[in-house]
Amino acid sequence: MEPTVIEQAPDAARKRGGRVARRELRSHGQQGHGRPYILRGIPTYDIMSEENLLRIEATADRILAEIGIEFRDDPVALDHWKRAGAKIEGDLVKFEPGMLREILKTAPAQFTQHARNPNNSVLIGGKSVVFSPAYGSPFVMDIDKGRRYGTIEDFQNFVKLAQSSPWLHHSGGTICEPVDVPVNKRHLDMVYSHIKYSDRGFMGSVTAESRAEDSIDMTRIVFGEKFVDENCVILGNVNVNSPLVWDATMTTALRAYARANQAAVVVPFILGGAMGPVTNAGAIAQSLAETMAGCALTQLERPGAPVIFGNFLSSMSLRSGSPTFGTPEPAIGSMVIGQLARRLNLPLRCSGNFTTSKLPDAQAMNEGTMSMLAAVHCGANFILHSAGFLDGLLSMSYEKFVMDMDFCGALHTYLDGVKVDDNQLALEAFQEVGPGSHFFGCGHTMANYETAFWDTEVADNEPFEKWEAAGSEDAAIRANKRWKKMLAEYQPPPLDAGTDEALRDFMDRKKAAMADAWY
Amino acid sequence: MEPTVIEQAPDAARKRGGRVARRELRSHGQQGHGRPYILRGIPTYDIMSEENLLRIEATADRILAEIGIEFRDDPVALDHWKRAGAKIEGDLVKFEPGMLREILKTAPAQFTQHARNPNNSVLIGGKSVVFSPAYGSPFVMDIDKGRRYGTIEDFQNFVKLAQSSPWLHHSGGTICEPVDVPVNKRHLDMVYSHIKYSDRGFMGSVTAESRAEDSIDMTRIVFGEKFVDENCVILGNVNVNSPLVWDATMTTALRAYARANQAAVVVPFILGGAMGPVTNAGAIAQSLAETMAGCALTQLERPGAPVIFGNFLSSMSLRSGSPTFGTPEPAIGSMVIGQLARRLNLPLRCSGNFTTSKLPDAQAMNEGTMSMLAAVHCGANFILHSAGFLDGLLSMSYEKFVMDMDFCGALHTYLDGVKVDDNQLALEAFQEVGPGSHFFGCGHTMANYETAFWDTEVADNEPFEKWEAAGSEDAAIRANKRWKKMLAEYQPPPLDAGTDEALRDFMDRKKAAMADAWY
Repeated sequence: MEPTVIEQAPDAARKRGGRVARRELRSHGQQGHGRPYILRGIPTYDIMSEENLLRIEATADRILAEIGIEFRDDPVALDHWKRAGAKIEGDLVKFEPGMLREILKTAPAQFTQHARNPNNSVLIGGKSVVFSPAYGSPFVMDIDKGRRYGTIEDFQNFVKLAQSSPWLHHSGGTICEPVDVPVNKRHLDMVYSHIKYSDRGFMGSVTAESRAEDSIDMTRIVFGEKFVDENCVILGNVNVNSPLVWDATMTTALRAYARANQAAVVVPFILGGAMGPVTNAGAIAQSLAETMAGCALTQLERPGAPVIFGNFLSSMSLRSGSPTFGTPEPAIGSMVIGQLARRLNLPLRCSGNFTTSKLPDAQAMNEGTMSMLAAVHCGANFILHSAGFLDGLLSMSYEKFVMDMDFCGALHTYLDGVKVDDNQLALEAFQEVGPGSHFFGCGHTMANYETAFWDTEVADNEPFEKWEAAGSEDAAIRANKRWKKMLAEYQPPPLDAGTDEALRDFMDRKKAAMADAWY
Repeated sequence: MEPTVIEQAPDAARKRGGRVARRELRSHGQQGHGRPYILRGIPTYDIMSEENLLRIEATADRILAEIGIEFRDDPVALDHWKRAGAKIEGDLVKFEPGMLREILKTAPAQFTQHARNPNNSVLIGGKSVVFSPAYGSPFVMDIDKGRRYGTIEDFQNFVKLAQSSPWLHHSGGTICEPVDVPVNKRHLDMVYSHIKYSDRGFMGSVTAESRAEDSIDMTRIVFGEKFVDENCVILGNVNVNSPLVWDATMTTALRAYARANQAAVVVPFILGGAMGPVTNAGAIAQSLAETMAGCALTQLERPGAPVIFGNFLSSMSLRSGSPTFGTPEPAIGSMVIGQLARRLNLPLRCSGNFTTSKLPDAQAMNEGTMSMLAAVHCGANFILHSAGFLDGLLSMSYEKFVMDMDFCGALHTYLDGVKVDDNQLALEAFQEVGPGSHFFGCGHTMANYETAFWDTEVADNEPFEKWEAAGSEDAAIRANKRWKKMLAEYQPPPLDAGTDEALRDFMDRKKAAMADAWY
């Protein structure tokens, strides 16, 4: 059952690039695949001076040394810290400046998350960019039926839509909460759905240590125990209970992933003014302190375990107290987070396609686009919430999922940057065309047009009259048609029957061993 | 009638910043003013290596030297080139490498465009960012009445809306075509409307040399002849007839502005695959060649005249042949254009809020936001098309105008970057709050909350239930209400009665001297 693992060489990844895939898509009229992940062709956008980065790092160090972080109800974590030389005062742990950076030296700068289809394995770190769906909404939405609680059917629909898109690279985790499944058994159905309906990488449960272990056990059925012990095949997204608290649910899950050599994504969720200060520099310093502590704990559990430096900055409306998403402060703050993560030499998860809009409308894509561009500019390697995020993360939207996937496609082209070679410079085209003519049929155009420009499947570029004659549809209506078409045409990736049976058997046994719990 | 001219010192501009204005806005409940312009607090986003920039410049030099640019029907322009040492072959002008760069050395790296209210004068160049409305649409749209031809009333409405916004800095030019006014007299009504209904900087006509001169003459009535001869008070946006042709309408208008010491904005409009090659690097090289030639011509007409290096890259749908706007290739290409302009030490106009959507919907703001962020990242100093652009520039949208102005507001905060000082780092807040508490009422929050976060006037950040109870409005509906409210509350800026009379008298005389022409 051990899969053939092909290390994704960067050049190979580029050669199988989106343009080729798009050309295939055009010629064959079917869903092609883009790239397993992006290798950015443009530099990161570094906005902060060395001097100011040092001041933020010094503030994080003082928070860690003078105020400290509480690790609640996890004696193993406290014991790790004690042995590492931290100062323990009850649950409160204080860290000498430099101590966490030293511990973090064993964490890999990049690693591969293996998918069950090895062509879909993703590199996380360095120049890689991996797009993963939104995560964690209790509700789902579409423009036909409006907002309602998510179900396992919705969950599977989103897994299928993601799998059908050439522009996402990852199946995500809790794409939406399947509230029709008991809380204590949900993780089994979610992990199974990711494995069954997708052949890309995915994320497991973190809501209890046992659920994290179940998630990892299911990957052992797919990949084999030895392979899992030696390679990353699953991620777990763990949140700090900001400010400055790690609770046992999260630290035990984090340690479960690290212990199994799987990657924890360590993410403070800081709404400025609530779980952090209202000033950006302070929230960034806090985020740095909290994330370094979580990442370092993975290394104490198992030195060398992969870990992702995560971040979720947000702001709030100071008139209403409501959280805001997709606003300018977190967007620009992401650039600084990126610089700080690179100074630690850790892979980065940052930002995403955030919005508070309750519809897939102009607000949704204005906020989402600013936020998503921040993610790719700041150098994020793993971009959770790349598609579907609406309603301040309370709802997963079918239409926005489609719009965002299309935007992820555009970002493949964007991140290629501007290539410079003789063909791209096109001097021969100017020589052929000369002043006052046009380039429609010239040799250079004919040789390049098929791969020339990003080709959207959602935006409408037709002239007004043609668009009007076709029904004056807005983007949400087009996206609505598209997700239905994608679901109708979805093809499940092959899954070995024995593996499938073993997974089902595991689930059945686990479910039978517990009474349903709904909280 | 000579206005008191206060040079806008950068520090003063920053102190009158958007946050103060926003606080005033909140306290007084009325339209405040932002800043006369932005001085960016973040660096530009430079994506291309020195080596590749040199290759693009070398290609532009070869286009200029080997293929040349036609200057049609303007013997004065040809005479300028001849005296400057270019090689003339009929209308075709060829330039030795380095010649245009040498001529461009007399052009200022930055200049002030004076507004009739000196508080609204804008710096163009260096770290400045000036937001100006969209330009040139024959149609206007709103969600009540759909698309129809623009009128002078629409034109004035947009001038009033721009003037009412604290987040635009400029009144623009041909905000929409007032098709109910004869073609040969429109420019008079447009320039008058900018002066009458706004007290910000604006742009004049370029559709004929005489109309350019009329536009400038009207500024002489406002500012005085001597002041206009010594200072920039009006811009003229001139387009290259790409590929590689300058026609007399444009070069005579360009020379009229330069002769009067006013600033031409020199803009090739290159749709890749039509007026330029389908490859980005080639289109950029072409744009560089065409723009350098136009900018240099202003310096031959009057050395030292202000001029703006402009650019309008776009792509096309190679399936339908339709132009596309807000796509990834022009967005990333803008970063390179920015680097090239800075190497010439010229102020930059680049990108804007572009889209092909026919509605103020998700597509409009996805494309617009990517495109607009490219403008601010690439270092554009004068951003035409900052608000209202829809329908591939064929329509000016009332609702998108409002959405875009709000986004321009967000960009004020974004371009401030992340400030680092003791208050921003907030160590005292962490000391006060400690682990596991919240920052709602802490001293640091109380001291900073009023100025903490960007405060939108269009996006809805309320919880779903509250939003639903208020009518489930999308962003377009909210924007529709907002432009009506803004127009209803519009207050005209004071205009000296004698100046107003002199302007009207000038218009009346000019109009009486010509029969109406409708083409």
